[in-house]
Amino acid sequence: MALRFADPAPNAYGYPLLIRQLLQSALDARSGREIVGSDGRRHGYEALAHRVGRLAAVLAAHGVDQGDVVAVMDWDSHRYLEAYFAVPMMGAMLQTVNVRLSRDQIAYTLKDTQPRAMIVHADFVEDLQALRPAIEPDCVIITCHDGQPASLDDAVGDYEQLLSAGAETFAFVDFDENALATTFHTTGTTGMPKAVTFSHRQLVLHTLAVGFAMGQQPDNQGLGRESVYMPITPMFHVHAWGLPYLATLLGLKQVYPGRYVPARLLALQREEGVTYSHCVPTILQMLLDEAGPDAWLGPWTIIIGGSALPATLLRAAAARGIIAVAGYGMSETGPVLTLSRHENDDSRPGETVRRWAGRPIPLVQIRLHDDNGEDVSGAANEQGEIVVRAPWLTQAYPNSAAASAALWAGGWLHTQDVASRETHGDIVIRDRLKDVIKTGGEWVSSAEIEDLALQDPDIAEAAVVGAPDPRWGERPVLFAVPRPGRTPRLQTLKDRMSPLVAAGHLSRWAAPDRLILIDALPRTSVGKIDKKQLRLRLGDDVLDSGRGAS
Amino acid sequence: MALRFADPAPNAYGYPLLIRQLLQSALDARSGREIVGSDGRRHGYEALAHRVGRLAAVLAAHGVDQGDVVAVMDWDSHRYLEAYFAVPMMGAMLQTVNVRLSRDQIAYTLKDTQPRAMIVHADFVEDLQALRPAIEPDCVIITCHDGQPASLDDAVGDYEQLLSAGAETFAFVDFDENALATTFHTTGTTGMPKAVTFSHRQLVLHTLAVGFAMGQQPDNQGLGRESVYMPITPMFHVHAWGLPYLATLLGLKQVYPGRYVPARLLALQREEGVTYSHCVPTILQMLLDEAGPDAWLGPWTIIIGGSALPATLLRAAAARGIIAVAGYGMSETGPVLTLSRHENDDSRPGETVRRWAGRPIPLVQIRLHDDNGEDVSGAANEQGEIVVRAPWLTQAYPNSAAASAALWAGGWLHTQDVASRETHGDIVIRDRLKDVIKTGGEWVSSAEIEDLALQDPDIAEAAVVGAPDPRWGERPVLFAVPRPGRTPRLQTLKDRMSPLVAAGHLSRWAAPDRLILIDALPRTSVGKIDKKQLRLRLGDDVLDSGRGAS
Repeated sequence: MALRFADPAPNAYGYPLLIRQLLQSALDARSGREIVGSDGRRHGYEALAHRVGRLAAVLAAHGVDQGDVVAVMDWDSHRYLEAYFAVPMMGAMLQTVNVRLSRDQIAYTLKDTQPRAMIVHADFVEDLQALRPAIEPDCVIITCHDGQPASLDDAVGDYEQLLSAGAETFAFVDFDENALATTFHTTGTTGMPKAVTFSHRQLVLHTLAVGFAMGQQPDNQGLGRESVYMPITPMFHVHAWGLPYLATLLGLKQVYPGRYVPARLLALQREEGVTYSHCVPTILQMLLDEAGPDAWLGPWTIIIGGSALPATLLRAAAARGIIAVAGYGMSETGPVLTLSRHENDDSRPGETVRRWAGRPIPLVQIRLHDDNGEDVSGAANEQGEIVVRAPWLTQAYPNSAAASAALWAGGWLHTQDVASRETHGDIVIRDRLKDVIKTGGEWVSSAEIEDLALQDPDIAEAAVVGAPDPRWGERPVLFAVPRPGRTPRLQTLKDRMSPLVAAGHLSRWAAPDRLILIDALPRTSVGKIDKKQLRLRLGDDVLDSGRGAS
Repeated sequence: MALRFADPAPNAYGYPLLIRQLLQSALDARSGREIVGSDGRRHGYEALAHRVGRLAAVLAAHGVDQGDVVAVMDWDSHRYLEAYFAVPMMGAMLQTVNVRLSRDQIAYTLKDTQPRAMIVHADFVEDLQALRPAIEPDCVIITCHDGQPASLDDAVGDYEQLLSAGAETFAFVDFDENALATTFHTTGTTGMPKAVTFSHRQLVLHTLAVGFAMGQQPDNQGLGRESVYMPITPMFHVHAWGLPYLATLLGLKQVYPGRYVPARLLALQREEGVTYSHCVPTILQMLLDEAGPDAWLGPWTIIIGGSALPATLLRAAAARGIIAVAGYGMSETGPVLTLSRHENDDSRPGETVRRWAGRPIPLVQIRLHDDNGEDVSGAANEQGEIVVRAPWLTQAYPNSAAASAALWAGGWLHTQDVASRETHGDIVIRDRLKDVIKTGGEWVSSAEIEDLALQDPDIAEAAVVGAPDPRWGERPVLFAVPRPGRTPRLQTLKDRMSPLVAAGHLSRWAAPDRLILIDALPRTSVGKIDKKQLRLRLGDDVLDSGRGAS
């Protein structure tokens, strides 16, 4: 026989998974809570829905139709939240422009998407003028501000004035849940930014699964109906991790801080009672510095992503009442794939567990693939590339068939992050795939050796890269910047590694064969160590050395 | 322009929402917890997955194919849990047979679905013999038991023996998420049972949304990773409210009690540390009676559905450490639509709130419709029929176009329950639509008047029905069974109602015009008051009375 399907009544409602349904659920929840705008305004959820309808009406009146792109260049604002809903709800696509890119890169992304309309904060009007050649001549510009109005002759008006001028609202209709809702560009380490897109269905499922997972976190670590939410990750960056959608679905009090100014963020947190945020480690450090050593900021749970959560930062945050918890994901994945947590019945040290990427949220399947695409997830501490399946992953890079095929090699999305899996299922990120050293048939994490090398008081900075080796594939080489007047020795690191190798915590192939002293490590424009440069420096002598790992 | 859609990479994984994905997520969560079987066996989630694969292999070996129906007649068992997964995962449809129906009704449901295979507990083998004429001759019978093996000559074998005999497993494949996964029959008050069906997509979304909502419950009231789950609602009844799917997705310890025996349920709860269950009020009362007045059963959260949660029962449960919380839904709705809760910051009395149906879970839209299909949800205390939209509602009754069209009149699923909405958005069930009295343009809840009438010490039992009235549409009439030696008077009820009418809590049309004393209330076979009989008794004198509500 064949699969069976329902034969729906002609008047049955099929219920597509649309962003509109998230807002409707929020209204039905009648939480009575407020949204605090970046310009100080505050209003309830009925007003939010009203403003979303008005924004869509304004955009439609200026020619925005289904399938059109509406680009936003703004700080984290109540306006951005409104655009998160209004633009996809009218069947258009929201482009969240990364305002931290260079003008050339922004120009590239705007040429790529050809927005029909743009909402531009006063702070970016100057950039906009430089970007004009990249923008279609008939693109409609709406300016906005949080106190200092923009001056732009050919703008059709100011956001708030346009919203309050019109009386009409927009008649939102249902459509296919696979319609694209958002787009933005990833910034890889090479080449121009690549566009990714997400559909209504993907964003609704991401919101449900993240909410499910966060609701399961232990007390004071989860996002719940009592939480007060403030983003400290830019809303142009992967939907601010999807949290504005979730916070709205839950009917939470939401606080939008505008441009990130540490003192203002801290004042808002205190005055509005913010209990839940998310940011990268650098921002958390900045907040702690601003607050000073004696400040108490709790209760405040902050999900940390973007890069690893250092133990020292976690402890410094805890000393100020902040619970920092790691999460993991990337632009192509919506973003959330895993969340860390500390279970109450758990004998493992909570501090360690909270720094791990954690366990997959519902519906996320994670495998760790070795070079041959074999799954090593089953074995404790085996390292492999994280490959994933979930209902909210980017299905392709538009206009880039080769990159798309590589992203989805073997039917799994390749993250290019290398991880191991702890016995309880937690994912621990070890390295970027391109930085992993493949030696003697094993994968050795360069980051792990670097951490050990940095325990040497003679070493100020360290970087480990793989040198090609005809017998072992690759062999690790340590580049080190000596502390003034000191001379690091390779044996110090080897001595530190021996007991770890003996205990099985470290591969026996992990000890570097060579130490190269260097005045300073080469860095990329964003300050990351440039390992490509280091590999170039290894030169032919290493290629020919043929030394074993004995 | 037109809506835009992604152009997926040819090797991208589209991720259909399949029940298989729930089990896969459970495995990846690696909770390390156990499933305790109805026959005393216990095993982990790896073994569950293994047994699910084995069950599918056994069914396939006996000819079960995609689209075939596999019917189960069993108590709440680990086997039932395995069938919840294995049967839909192989593309077949699981029929959960209501073993409490009459043999005639069961025969009707089996004729309706024509199962290709049946899994039948020893306790129902005698029924099965009587049902033979209704079952296709080539239907494969697998027997099962929890200690007393079944004796049935033409069965292909015993469940456990078949599972352990074969070595092979089943290669589950992906398919369309809209494929039907389950079917069972609703038992309305009139006519033969009607089949309802649910698809993979519907069950996955129901599981996610219920988990989301339960994770948002306050401490000790929610379902979380530490919970130990035991169903006390039959697994043939609307997927045991979907909780076995959710408990599995969360990787919980699960306890399957087999046939409900109060002493055994209490022993399992104590010995296995059960903290989370769901049942109807009658079962909760039975458990409290069995436990005795001095027992302490907490912590134990029990979701109550099926009928209203009486305040006395809620208090009696609380005195034994049980937190009883109401939920609302029906066979056609998956079932969960709303969950009650008591928020920490809430000034309302928790006891009252927990008895209400509560607020819609995510993605559920609830409206209250009056006779004209107008929405009265916006007005506090206005009553209307609950009509709903959600992504997991029955789309039609197969083979019943008229009933399907009525179910979905106006594009909303009609529950035939009448409710009001409190200011915080909580739904409060007032009456069944057919029992509501429509008088003077308002809807008056018969249940509400009955509650007030029962406060009269002269009244033992009470029922209120609407008598047709040419001027007012209907007028309430009170039927009362006097307490021995007492003579109830209508004025006593009217006096009790006056201040409530004055305060606006009750419609001014609510006071009955007539009191009819009666020796006993007529009841249906399941013990419900038979209001149809009472309406017949009103006779022509009431029809012609024409009395107003002055």
